[in-house]
Amino acid sequence: MPRFFRKIKKKVGNPPGTLIYTGEKRDEKIKVKMIEYNDSDYNEKEIEENLIDKCLTFKDTKEISWLNIEGIHKLEIIEKIGNYVKIHPLVLEDIVNVNQRPKIENFDDYIYLILKILDYDENKNEVILEQISIIFSSNYVITFREKSSELFNPIINRIRTKKGQIRKMGTDYLVYSLIDIVIDYYFLILENIGEKIEDMEAELVTNPTESTLQNIHQMKRGLLTLRRSIWPLREVINRLLRRELPFIHEESNLYFRDLYDHTIQIIDTIETLRDILSGMLDIYLSSVSNKMNEVMKVLTVIATIFIPLTFLTGIFGINFIALPNIYWEGIIITLVAMLIVTIFMVIYFKRKNWL
Amino acid sequence: MPRFFRKIKKKVGNPPGTLIYTGEKRDEKIKVKMIEYNDSDYNEKEIEENLIDKCLTFKDTKEISWLNIEGIHKLEIIEKIGNYVKIHPLVLEDIVNVNQRPKIENFDDYIYLILKILDYDENKNEVILEQISIIFSSNYVITFREKSSELFNPIINRIRTKKGQIRKMGTDYLVYSLIDIVIDYYFLILENIGEKIEDMEAELVTNPTESTLQNIHQMKRGLLTLRRSIWPLREVINRLLRRELPFIHEESNLYFRDLYDHTIQIIDTIETLRDILSGMLDIYLSSVSNKMNEVMKVLTVIATIFIPLTFLTGIFGINFIALPNIYWEGIIITLVAMLIVTIFMVIYFKRKNWL
Amino acid sequence: MPRFFRKIKKKVGNPPGTLIYTGEKRDEKIKVKMIEYNDSDYNEKEIEENLIDKCLTFKDTKEISWLNIEGIHKLEIIEKIGNYVKIHPLVLEDIVNVNQRPKIENFDDYIYLILKILDYDENKNEVILEQISIIFSSNYVITFREKSSELFNPIINRIRTKKGQIRKMGTDYLVYSLIDIVIDYYFLILENIGEKIEDMEAELVTNPTESTLQNIHQMKRGLLTLRRSIWPLREVINRLLRRELPFIHEESNLYFRDLYDHTIQIIDTIETLRDILSGMLDIYLSSVSNKMNEVMKVLTVIATIFIPLTFLTGIFGINFIALPNIYWEGIIITLVAMLIVTIFMVIYFKRKNWL
Amino acid sequence: MPRFFRKIKKKVGNPPGTLIYTGEKRDEKIKVKMIEYNDSDYNEKEIEENLIDKCLTFKDTKEISWLNIEGIHKLEIIEKIGNYVKIHPLVLEDIVNVNQRPKIENFDDYIYLILKILDYDENKNEVILEQISIIFSSNYVITFREKSSELFNPIINRIRTKKGQIRKMGTDYLVYSLIDIVIDYYFLILENIGEKIEDMEAELVTNPTESTLQNIHQMKRGLLTLRRSIWPLREVINRLLRRELPFIHEESNLYFRDLYDHTIQIIDTIETLRDILSGMLDIYLSSVSNKMNEVMKVLTVIATIFIPLTFLTGIFGINFIALPNIYWEGIIITLVAMLIVTIFMVIYFKRKNWL
Amino acid sequence: MPRFFRKIKKKVGNPPGTLIYTGEKRDEKIKVKMIEYNDSDYNEKEIEENLIDKCLTFKDTKEISWLNIEGIHKLEIIEKIGNYVKIHPLVLEDIVNVNQRPKIENFDDYIYLILKILDYDENKNEVILEQISIIFSSNYVITFREKSSELFNPIINRIRTKKGQIRKMGTDYLVYSLIDIVIDYYFLILENIGEKIEDMEAELVTNPTESTLQNIHQMKRGLLTLRRSIWPLREVINRLLRRELPFIHEESNLYFRDLYDHTIQIIDTIETLRDILSGMLDIYLSSVSNKMNEVMKVLTVIATIFIPLTFLTGIFGINFIALPNIYWEGIIITLVAMLIVTIFMVIYFKRKNWL
Repeated sequence: MPRFFRKIKKKVGNPPGTLIYTGEKRDEKIKVKMIEYNDSDYNEKEIEENLIDKCLTFKDTKEISWLNIEGIHKLEIIEKIGNYVKIHPLVLEDIVNVNQRPKIENFDDYIYLILKILDYDENKNEVILEQISIIFSSNYVITFREKSSELFNPIINRIRTKKGQIRKMGTDYLVYSLIDIVIDYYFLILENIGEKIEDMEAELVTNPTESTLQNIHQMKRGLLTLRRSIWPLREVINRLLRRELPFIHEESNLYFRDLYDHTIQIIDTIETLRDILSGMLDIYLSSVSNKMNEVMKVLTVIATIFIPLTFLTGIFGINFIALPNIYWEGIIITLVAMLIVTIFMVIYFKRKNWL
Repeated sequence: MPRFFRKIKKKVGNPPGTLIYTGEKRDEKIKVKMIEYNDSDYNEKEIEENLIDKCLTFKDTKEISWLNIEGIHKLEIIEKIGNYVKIHPLVLEDIVNVNQRPKIENFDDYIYLILKILDYDENKNEVILEQISIIFSSNYVITFREKSSELFNPIINRIRTKKGQIRKMGTDYLVYSLIDIVIDYYFLILENIGEKIEDMEAELVTNPTESTLQNIHQMKRGLLTLRRSIWPLREVINRLLRRELPFIHEESNLYFRDLYDHTIQIIDTIETLRDILSGMLDIYLSSVSNKMNEVMKVLTVIATIFIPLTFLTGIFGINFIALPNIYWEGIIITLVAMLIVTIFMVIYFKRKNWL
Repeated sequence: MPRFFRKIKKKVGNPPGTLIYTGEKRDEKIKVKMIEYNDSDYNEKEIEENLIDKCLTFKDTKEISWLNIEGIHKLEIIEKIGNYVKIHPLVLEDIVNVNQRPKIENFDDYIYLILKILDYDENKNEVILEQISIIFSSNYVITFREKSSELFNPIINRIRTKKGQIRKMGTDYLVYSLIDIVIDYYFLILENIGEKIEDMEAELVTNPTESTLQNIHQMKRGLLTLRRSIWPLREVINRLLRRELPFIHEESNLYFRDLYDHTIQIIDTIETLRDILSGMLDIYLSSVSNKMNEVMKVLTVIATIFIPLTFLTGIFGINFIALPNIYWEGIIITLVAMLIVTIFMVIYFKRKNWL
Repeated sequence: MPRFFRKIKKKVGNPPGTLIYTGEKRDEKIKVKMIEYNDSDYNEKEIEENLIDKCLTFKDTKEISWLNIEGIHKLEIIEKIGNYVKIHPLVLEDIVNVNQRPKIENFDDYIYLILKILDYDENKNEVILEQISIIFSSNYVITFREKSSELFNPIINRIRTKKGQIRKMGTDYLVYSLIDIVIDYYFLILENIGEKIEDMEAELVTNPTESTLQNIHQMKRGLLTLRRSIWPLREVINRLLRRELPFIHEESNLYFRDLYDHTIQIIDTIETLRDILSGMLDIYLSSVSNKMNEVMKVLTVIATIFIPLTFLTGIFGINFIALPNIYWEGIIITLVAMLIVTIFMVIYFKRKNWL
Repeated sequence: MPRFFRKIKKKVGNPPGTLIYTGEKRDEKIKVKMIEYNDSDYNEKEIEENLIDKCLTFKDTKEISWLNIEGIHKLEIIEKIGNYVKIHPLVLEDIVNVNQRPKIENFDDYIYLILKILDYDENKNEVILEQISIIFSSNYVITFREKSSELFNPIINRIRTKKGQIRKMGTDYLVYSLIDIVIDYYFLILENIGEKIEDMEAELVTNPTESTLQNIHQMKRGLLTLRRSIWPLREVINRLLRRELPFIHEESNLYFRDLYDHTIQIIDTIETLRDILSGMLDIYLSSVSNKMNEVMKVLTVIATIFIPLTFLTGIFGINFIALPNIYWEGIIITLVAMLIVTIFMVIYFKRKNWL
């Protein structure tokens, strides 16, 4: 299960602006990619982490520069970039502290955005969180991710191949595209969870086990994680939409409105799925009771039929053994009594619907 | 049960405005009907899907044109219409993506509306969703439905036969009539569900079974689906009502207010039904416990009467077999002891109300 | 139990303004009463339903006219009145459709109000709903009720006998008096329900049965019905209070504020009663569990005492029958063993508080 | 338990402003006390209820007059005071109707306040409600209580002994002091309830009984009563605080802000206690289940050990009695079999943690 | 467990501004520390509680003075400071009444803040509350704590060693640092609780016991305490952030915004943990039911196998003892019957998944 907090203890008492990486321990090299483009030109390069200073010239170019940092566990690199762009120390602190909620902050020179990338590990049946920070201005976008993945490849491809409008638009459209792909993954995860829930509903009816309950609980936690990521994201997109931020062109408004609709749709689906999970819990609990009922009925039927019969054999032992001359009549009377008791019991249980 | 999402995976990473049909797989021809009318004239024609270009002249006519498209699974047709009316690519994307929430968007040339048509399949006991998109301006209305049905026939009849005021009014009144009939169906479904719930309440008292619980769960899901469709619809109608949109005449305000009252009434009823369903769940759960109680009582009564009796026959075996001279006295004592025990037990159980 | 909807199916697809009576089927004559009064004069007449045209002159008189219609199942009469007063077709539709929520609508010539009159059928233990529509202007008040009852007699008496200020005040005061008496009935019903709940609380402690649960459920439904009627009524009175409607004099403000306080008080009590009912449900459910516990204890005590004893008689049968010379010692040992087992068990159960 | 309503039936249909006392039936004399004071002078007198007219001159004096009426069951006295001060008939109606919610109303000549005094009867374990109405202007304060008690003695003492600032301040400070003492009692009751809850928590762990559940339910009802009194009081104090009422001096603002903090604190504590009570309910319910589990385990252990043993003695009876020559071997085999079965069972139950 | 209230009874009826210490009884000396600093100078001294008058000159110095009082149980010291700074009597009352909610109040000369310091006692598994009051102006900060601890040492160190910006900034930055360290402790506690919850989740799956439930309840109470402290704190920080208070410089805004983000994050985590705890409760309750199910199955399997077998031995006793010539056939028939019954039962239970 995902941890709620990752390392936080060493922070207490430090002055604000102290960089402390709170993510998973990592050692691999940080992957840095610089993509520069405008309507006509396109340039893409991978940069060694120790050569990062060389690319720190993008603030003054006219084309759009997208600096994508995959790995934030080496604080000196983050600081170098922070110094060049003049990122506020508190923002740098937030970038490397992966316990942030999604938020947006407007500074004089740039806008700062935090999102959560979600992924779903089918094997462990758990939702994996990754934090992404985006800093953008009118001519550059910097993205800080916790780790490396192929998430943004479709966007890089669209820039590379001039597919869609991305090469003609500004940094706001690039930011929109990044958020859009993050949200598309939310839909994927919801779809996964939705399918699992439907499977579990079928299982509940046919064969509920204790692991079903574990799964319901797990699903609930997954939805909680999603919810914690998407509720504040709605606020973030709402601010991008309200036309009060710099660097956002009016023609992008429609795109952010589209994103806003998507977040509402996700929230809506999460709430519905939560309602359905609650209903499933009720079914599970009552199915446990029903099972116990069934067990009890079997016991009751067997015991109430045979305990009186056993008593009758005992009675026979008392009465007739001492009277050898009416021995056979005794046996017959006893057997008939047993038969009557049994028939009576069977009819009784039939009428109670226990058989 | 209705799926939460329909195909979405292939979307991730596509540029915005890429048309992807996400509804059920269909192959049938798309039914296109064009109805043109004003106070004096009326003209109605069915159009072959490959001849659709021929009717794309309605933007410039003076009478009201209603283009009703039943089937959105052939993207080229949607695109043709989109190109003619200059529908924004993101809107086209929404039209063919059937996972939208009801919403309204105001563009320069037209207003775009999404609604959910609900239908109730009595056999499968489930609510079926269909998405309908409406695009309208001052002189045309375009409706995109997922499939063909007789839903709008009463409106077509009223236009045809000049019944009511529909021929004298503008496109806003036609849009009102379309929404009105969609909402009337919501009432029908609620009435259906309400009746089923009342049947289930009677069943709960007389003979609750495990399928009762399944039905309660199913009803809850049906109400959830209704709720997801009607809550955002309230917002949509509220915007139509606030007199801030173009193409809406003032005399239509009263009609949209009437629609608004209906949505409030539906929401109100849904919440009440949900409350009643919760109450039914409690009754069901306690009836399961009560049943178990009854089973246990039978077992307890039988066992506590006969186990001591059996013991007494055993005691008899020990004591009196060895004393043939007081054999008959022994039998009588034993039988009297049994009688006393039995009477005592029966009185005890009577007083506990177990018999 | 009250139905959620009454006939609605035939409505689908009709043009707006089509009158459809959706209440209970009725055949009796409609009772029409016209009361005209001012400070000095008073005139009251019963009117035959087919002579209703004769009294349709009240719009132009100076005194206050109150036309009270008891019965809305004859649509032609409603239409006649509607035509004379120029009531909007959608309002007429609402008057005869008894599924409306309480609401208020302001038209140029009149104000339109819908309320719910509640009554409580003690025998069936259910709340009965009746819809009342009020249309009023500066010099007339029309009330449409579903059926005839003595509800408004106290007001008629006060007009007749000049008791209180009613003869000196305008139509707004008459409307206030009507709403006031309707709300007084809500208090009566709440009082009834409150008393029943207190009885049930006592019953819960002494002797909870399955019918207790049914009653709790029934009470909940009654409160839901009350709640659905009173919540929107609060909004209605709030609008009457905000001094933005015509025909409402400033000196009436205090009276409507008083009504508003009453509705708040009713809402408040409803919520409290609902909380108490939930608590009672918990007590009921746990009392069911406690009862089962008691049953199980009896079974366990009897079985764990006698099963070992029966085993001991069996053991005796094996060992001592074959040894006639130590037969009596055997019996004594066996009986002592039985005594020890029994004493041990009784002590054990005493300590567990099961006896 | 406190009743929700006290007599209300006779009210229906009366004109507004009809005085009906709805409190408990009382016959005792009404205690009337008049306290007149300013910074230098102080005068206090008890007045016979039939001589009340004599003191009705306070409207025109310069010093502050506090008229404290303890008992509102004699309507003619209330009416006399009402006539002198020109209290609106609807306010007089509210004063003697003890079912009001706390509220504040601003009239031209005076401000009208309703509060609830709460008291806690430890014996019956219930919260007792009393209504107090306060009418004040710039130079007089009238308090109407349901019954006589020592509640306000500390304030009278402070006025008498010039302790604190009360003699130097206006009527608003006296009103503040009255409300303050009422709210202090709320804290006392909360403290009582809080202590009871803590006792019950300890009891839950050591020895939960059915009466524990009754107590939880009782506590819940007490908190509901408190809540109904304090929530609207918050609004009342908020209005006193917003500086929009007459007769409230600016320097009192801080005192009313302090009261507001207290109400918030009480609300906060009530909600916390309610949460804790819910948690206790869960513990109680699961402890009932756990107890049943324990009972079942005892039964199961005893039955599953002895039933097979009894069977073995039966088997012995069949096989070996007929074979006298291997009789002893039979006994030994049987006893060994019994031993093995018993050991096996004991190990099994040990491993399941049932022993 | 933490008490809800600490001593309050003696307060009732006292005039406002009466100092009553409501915390735990303490006798130790009060620790007073005065720290004076500006960018260049730094001065720190411990002051004996009876020499406190000597340091009461800080209002008129230019450097920043931080007076840290650890212990509020000696009222005369609080009063001395209050007199010097001219703290309002109601504020002094609040400082020594440790039952306050976090709040902020703006006076002419100073701002008054109340916070709650939380600590977690791992042994008793409970959250410990301490109240801290902060009074600050442009050149002094006074902190009143209930007891002495090392909480603020990191800040004192940073002032002493000029680490970070604290020496260059104003009193607002010092106040920010104090709140920041208090909130950092909230994170620590949440982390502790989060870890415990994760341990308990594992325990729930493997071996749920009654103490698990106690722990869940305890955790819930801890979260309730946290929640009561953090919700109002959010409001406090929000006011510090809104730039409407004096003594707060604009460059501090970003720091308070950071604090605000932290409180939101804590609230968010608390709500998530509460949701998870509720889910755990459901799992616990159903695991109790499942255990009972298992117990019942064992009983049922054993009883339903052996009771019929015992009956068969009884039947044998009746029939074949009297017929010595077919004795062996009788034994064989009986044993075969037993075998068949047993096989049948085992198959039956296998199919029901009870074995």
